[in-house]
Amino acid sequence: MSKYCFGIDVGGTSVKCALFSAEGTIEEKWEIPTRTEQEGVKILPDIAEAILKKMEEKEITREEAVGIGIGLPGPIEENGEIACAVNLHWGRKNVEKELEELTGMPVKAGNDANVAALGEMWKGGGKGAKNLILATLGTGVGGGIIINEKIVTGAHGAGGEIGHAMINPAEEKACNCGNKGCLEQYASATGIASLARKALGKTEKESLLRSKSHVTAKDVFDAYKEKDALAQEIVDEFAEYLGRALAVFACVADPDVIVLGGGVSKAGQVLVDCVEKYYQKYAFSACKATPIKLATLGNDAGICGAAKLILSR
Amino acid sequence: MSKYCFGIDVGGTSVKCALFSAEGTIEEKWEIPTRTEQEGVKILPDIAEAILKKMEEKEITREEAVGIGIGLPGPIEENGEIACAVNLHWGRKNVEKELEELTGMPVKAGNDANVAALGEMWKGGGKGAKNLILATLGTGVGGGIIINEKIVTGAHGAGGEIGHAMINPAEEKACNCGNKGCLEQYASATGIASLARKALGKTEKESLLRSKSHVTAKDVFDAYKEKDALAQEIVDEFAEYLGRALAVFACVADPDVIVLGGGVSKAGQVLVDCVEKYYQKYAFSACKATPIKLATLGNDAGICGAAKLILSR
Repeated sequence: MSKYCFGIDVGGTSVKCALFSAEGTIEEKWEIPTRTEQEGVKILPDIAEAILKKMEEKEITREEAVGIGIGLPGPIEENGEIACAVNLHWGRKNVEKELEELTGMPVKAGNDANVAALGEMWKGGGKGAKNLILATLGTGVGGGIIINEKIVTGAHGAGGEIGHAMINPAEEKACNCGNKGCLEQYASATGIASLARKALGKTEKESLLRSKSHVTAKDVFDAYKEKDALAQEIVDEFAEYLGRALAVFACVADPDVIVLGGGVSKAGQVLVDCVEKYYQKYAFSACKATPIKLATLGNDAGICGAAKLILSR
Repeated sequence: MSKYCFGIDVGGTSVKCALFSAEGTIEEKWEIPTRTEQEGVKILPDIAEAILKKMEEKEITREEAVGIGIGLPGPIEENGEIACAVNLHWGRKNVEKELEELTGMPVKAGNDANVAALGEMWKGGGKGAKNLILATLGTGVGGGIIINEKIVTGAHGAGGEIGHAMINPAEEKACNCGNKGCLEQYASATGIASLARKALGKTEKESLLRSKSHVTAKDVFDAYKEKDALAQEIVDEFAEYLGRALAVFACVADPDVIVLGGGVSKAGQVLVDCVEKYYQKYAFSACKATPIKLATLGNDAGICGAAKLILSR
């Protein structure tokens, strides 16, 4: 008898679905829309329907299905409840219980950033590691901590919320979370763009970035690769913040590997090189040699991690 | 049949030994000297002899003994090897294997700071918690992280090495570890004394501390309790560093409780109050209410954690 499982990654506009073999091969991948109307009451039934239809289509029996792993944009507690998910228009909801009732299969839920970390550990940039820190540098900075192959959920579902580590007591501008000086304010795509705006306003220095009406993180890294001096200063400032923060996180978790993902990681190896310089400067001696790697799964990190979540339950 | 285990805490001058019931009661406690001569070759045989003698005295059979937990001053790897232990004059040594051969009983070894964290979780300031950060504020700053009731050892045995988290990039003086700006430089007894010396040199302000020829952390907290203005500034500076660092650690591990131990924690509840003020200021919203508590086991944290290590193996 072949064994299968489902990996589901729920986003604010679409739900990524995948059928996996129990060995971890993606057999099929598809998407359905996330229907957030009426407080998102249709989201889980839609997912259940998509899964049951796929099983019928593929002639997979309940006995052949290990279960469903699901990543969600919100803090998941030990009992499988989500405290809230703003993007899904959800309040408190017991996702595992509801989806189990809808499908008759075991369900394991996790926070999407944490689940992505599990995916990168299983099949991505951190393959082979047992202990890993993933920093997802997107619009914000998310993260996931894996210790002994398990997600660190934390007492309030805030394990791995590294974007809100306070790293600059001198900051005057508030972060979206209400605090000031969070890592996210410097190391996200938005943060890098804001560092760029500040740098451009501070000097008259020539720069490729001056031709842009609205400088993005990608523009900064593109100009950096062209050896633009101002872009190099901006990247250096970003890298100092991120490298220093990662060094502090390593004093807590001492991972086998640190993985950088999210949109900013599309900058490629230069990102690793500049962050590693500061990481090594600030890291505790025993952790200085910890490798920093790029995430490799891209948008598949979520479905892969979700599948791993149920497979290693 | 009653069941017993041994909790052993190895320090540079003495080895604390304890016989526990399997339910966790300390049946007997004693100490033996740590003989560090000849590269510490006698330390483990001395421990084995002490344990076997105690079993004979108490008429405990091998079948009644669950095993031996042992805390050591150095990084312990997954396989039970210690990479080095300067204070014991040891190089690399497989402690678990050697002590198992000497006693014929199962042995589980851990780093002393981590083991103390496990002890405080089991029977101390963090009783009932599954996820805990212990900050040990002594001559240096040690620490231990517990996730899901297990010690976070880390890839290089550096899990919980929070004393070497870099929190002040502006620092010019080097830490013992070679880096600059480590938490230990501000939050240890030595660090507080050094903050005091700096503060005394910077102003002419009246202070109870001026009567001391050599100001200690205890003097600072004593003067703080007397409402000495300069001592209040010093404690405030210390608390800002420690509270901020703990807030960052909480973004990684999101513990149920943070426990403060070590000599500095003898200052009592005022320590918690001043650190909590800054912790709450800087912590991520979900973690702001995480309680900060005093360690309660004192010198017994090591033997208790060591016993728990073997009992929950």
